[in-house]
Amino acid sequence: MLEQKSVATRTRGPVRIVGAGLLGASLGLALREKGVEVILDDASPSNLRLAVDYGAGRLPVEGDAPALVIVCVPPDVVADAVERALLDYPDAVVTDVASVKLAPLRALEARGTDLTRYIGSHPMAGRERGGAISARADLFFGRPWVICRDEETRREDLALIEAVALDVGGVLIEMTPEEHDASVGLVSHLPQLVSSLLAAGLSDAPDAAIQLAGQGLRDTTRLASSAPELWLQILAANSGPVVEALEGMIARLSAVTDALRDPDAPGARRAVADAMAAGNSGVARIPGKHGQSQRFATIVVMVDDTPGQLGRLLTELGEINVNMEDLRLEHSPGAQIGLAEIAVLPEVKQRTIEDLGARGWRIASV
Amino acid sequence: MLEQKSVATRTRGPVRIVGAGLLGASLGLALREKGVEVILDDASPSNLRLAVDYGAGRLPVEGDAPALVIVCVPPDVVADAVERALLDYPDAVVTDVASVKLAPLRALEARGTDLTRYIGSHPMAGRERGGAISARADLFFGRPWVICRDEETRREDLALIEAVALDVGGVLIEMTPEEHDASVGLVSHLPQLVSSLLAAGLSDAPDAAIQLAGQGLRDTTRLASSAPELWLQILAANSGPVVEALEGMIARLSAVTDALRDPDAPGARRAVADAMAAGNSGVARIPGKHGQSQRFATIVVMVDDTPGQLGRLLTELGEINVNMEDLRLEHSPGAQIGLAEIAVLPEVKQRTIEDLGARGWRIASV
Repeated sequence: MLEQKSVATRTRGPVRIVGAGLLGASLGLALREKGVEVILDDASPSNLRLAVDYGAGRLPVEGDAPALVIVCVPPDVVADAVERALLDYPDAVVTDVASVKLAPLRALEARGTDLTRYIGSHPMAGRERGGAISARADLFFGRPWVICRDEETRREDLALIEAVALDVGGVLIEMTPEEHDASVGLVSHLPQLVSSLLAAGLSDAPDAAIQLAGQGLRDTTRLASSAPELWLQILAANSGPVVEALEGMIARLSAVTDALRDPDAPGARRAVADAMAAGNSGVARIPGKHGQSQRFATIVVMVDDTPGQLGRLLTELGEINVNMEDLRLEHSPGAQIGLAEIAVLPEVKQRTIEDLGARGWRIASV
Repeated sequence: MLEQKSVATRTRGPVRIVGAGLLGASLGLALREKGVEVILDDASPSNLRLAVDYGAGRLPVEGDAPALVIVCVPPDVVADAVERALLDYPDAVVTDVASVKLAPLRALEARGTDLTRYIGSHPMAGRERGGAISARADLFFGRPWVICRDEETRREDLALIEAVALDVGGVLIEMTPEEHDASVGLVSHLPQLVSSLLAAGLSDAPDAAIQLAGQGLRDTTRLASSAPELWLQILAANSGPVVEALEGMIARLSAVTDALRDPDAPGARRAVADAMAAGNSGVARIPGKHGQSQRFATIVVMVDDTPGQLGRLLTELGEINVNMEDLRLEHSPGAQIGLAEIAVLPEVKQRTIEDLGARGWRIASV
């Protein structure tokens, strides 16, 4: 199904993957695609079977001698699985992909395990749905892959993990476990909780309020559909940094709440405006989509919400020789119509509007 | 530029629009498109000139006799503008489109103004960018338009405002001012503040943390780029409901923070899991995109981040006769590649994968 990249495979196999959930199975798919021998294992025979059927690797056999073991199990059992792998494969390098890095390390240290061959890592990849069934070979593509080496790490051991990260398309980032945990507390764990708890406030809201919901609320609460079970383990294992991030958030919310209790008091409006301006600065620092679309001009086209309409629009864009750089769809509540916001190079904007208009599309330029 | 709809225009003009910003100019464009005579006014001559040039209406002249005046000015000056309109046009019905409904009403009542001809309303439409320059005729299309009538409201006066709301594509919703303000506090004003204050926490975060940002953080903080000035007026004018919504949010955050301070204490993990489960329930209630895409199957295609690649993909989808139902693009940080997540009817999924694969596209089915 997947075209081979021309770049040579860096990873030296076989690679043993312990835990055939979303991350383990995705990693298996991605490495298999590069021709790497992948051995899968999972405490659940049915999970394992599914991942093998899916093409993520083969079943383990007596005498397997992996060069690298990648532990892809939930945070609570990472230390157990890493210790087991270090014992079972005395010549292998062992890593894990857990979303927290300090708690498993401390747990391993407390057992007195020799950790020379262990290097913690964390690919910043995931989906709202879990399990091998949701696995995809491109899950790690273009995503940061954090590696937490220390002064005992051997250069050749590190290279094994870097090879896997690069082969699956990851972007290497080095951090200490402490730096990692504080960072994900701020950019991943806090947003998850904020989104969940914002959405929690809607669970008993009047229907009248819900029907006024728009795209802003949808975006802000999208993460709230994540499964609680796994997140509970992540949050508990990173409770220190998460509590610190939460306290900062509560302090900022409380300051604005106090100001809004008496908006006409001296300094009150200034406090709210400053907090929102800090939000402007914060969001401007996030790399990715936000900045990119400013290179382009935007055209909004109305499309009926019937099969084929959007496809026809895109086909006609091809016919009039316009390259679409980005597309955002907005479905309208209560109406069988959607708005397609199309980004194009500024120099073709006017022509696109004219050509689409001539073909009968309803267009509003912005 | 815009195709006329075949539906007959309901609105009886002329309509006078006071305030030629984003909402006023968009309303003017939408009504002009329906053939309605629109008179524009604005305290700023240059704003007014821009909106007239833009095609949103004509300049006022001596002897204008509007059937309806729509006040589209910032919340702080709504009461002034409504009172002025009621005095200047004793035969006209007057409405406003402010994001808060109780504060302007109370301010008008305090002046002793006869409010029989005034009916407050609020189209739930907006953009992160403001001003006539950002106006678009489709701004109100498919969006809720809240009307706050009372027992004194005459049926024929109400009909004038309903006609405008329907003509510009809005979905009529009736509420009391109290209901409206509490509802927008919960589904609009709270998410705005939460997003802003989450992003504010990034304004002085280490670069290392920021580079781990993913799509979840981007979605959660998108609203944080809104301009503080207008929001300050909205929040101050709706401070009661907003403070109540903020207090609920702070209480939920505090409960989770307390639980995570000692995640191994009895009941602590349960408290976090329950809060996240409430988030699952809350987000499931929001209408719109969330549920819609479940009708479709999804295919993810890798596209180089160069002009033309995405356009070529969409053109080729047309060539192989596949109608795309939805599209989501994800740009990868640090990589010149993007992922195009394409929704198609389940029955064409397999064929699409095969045909695109045969044309050399890198595909991962999900």
